Amino acid sequence: MLNKIEHIGIAIKDALVSEPIFNALLNQKPTKREVVEKENVQTIFYQVGESKIELLQSLSDEGAIAKFIAKKGEGIHHIAFLVDDIVAELARLKSEGFQLINESPVPGADNKLIAFVHPKTTNGVLIELCQEVIKN
Amino acid sequence: MLNKIEHIGIAIKDALVSEPIFNALLNQKPTKREVVEKENVQTIFYQVGESKIELLQSLSDEGAIAKFIAKKGEGIHHIAFLVDDIVAELARLKSEGFQLINESPVPGADNKLIAFVHPKTTNGVLIELCQEVIKN
Repeated sequence: MLNKIEHIGIAIKDALVSEPIFNALLNQKPTKREVVEKENVQTIFYQVGESKIELLQSLSDEGAIAKFIAKKGEGIHHIAFLVDDIVAELARLKSEGFQLINESPVPGADNKLIAFVHPKTTNGVLIELCQEVIKN
Repeated sequence: MLNKIEHIGIAIKDALVSEPIFNALLNQKPTKREVVEKENVQTIFYQVGESKIELLQSLSDEGAIAKFIAKKGEGIHHIAFLVDDIVAELARLKSEGFQLINESPVPGADNKLIAFVHPKTTNGVLIELCQEVIKN
């Protein structure tokens, strides 16, 4: 069950250039910033309705975002759907024949467990599933 | 004021191939189909939370979607934001320096007035604004 579009990820080269663009476009300031050390990426979040816009800047030339930009240029990188049970949803998608990038969820930004589905089985669209981590 | 992500537009080559993929991915059937004659495009909508996924298939080789796929391949085409007053929002974006593809709104799918903002001023992201048409 996909509850909502949690966020849309957008690949940017340089937050100093892109953040003012999105501030003006969305007519607001970011609601959150977070470095995801494991992915070596800087994230900047905006809230629009129940969803977020997530700007993604690679902090190394070797990261997935840097490689994406080198190949395709800046732009929309992925769509993330919020689910209640990411393990069950990954199993469902695998049984449907989708190729999973992450067979098991991994820690992501914004206090989430995340997993990606390969765009070659999803019509060229990189899909992320994410589930809120409940803190005790 | 951007109220929500109204939809994410995804360029597809052939609904006969892509619709089963999205039915399986989103675990649902489409909620709506509509041909937009003016754009020569077939649209297929799915609802996820407050937003929609809109599949876009060109009905001619000359259409914007066909050209997009020829250049970039199938995948995410645009993000559409719902606004209350599209004319006022277009004026605000123009005053901020964004390049408008549509200076004035035009009729779009799903009973909307729509206008596009050029991706070269929005970090490579094609942005659509849309406003519900009130039927009397």
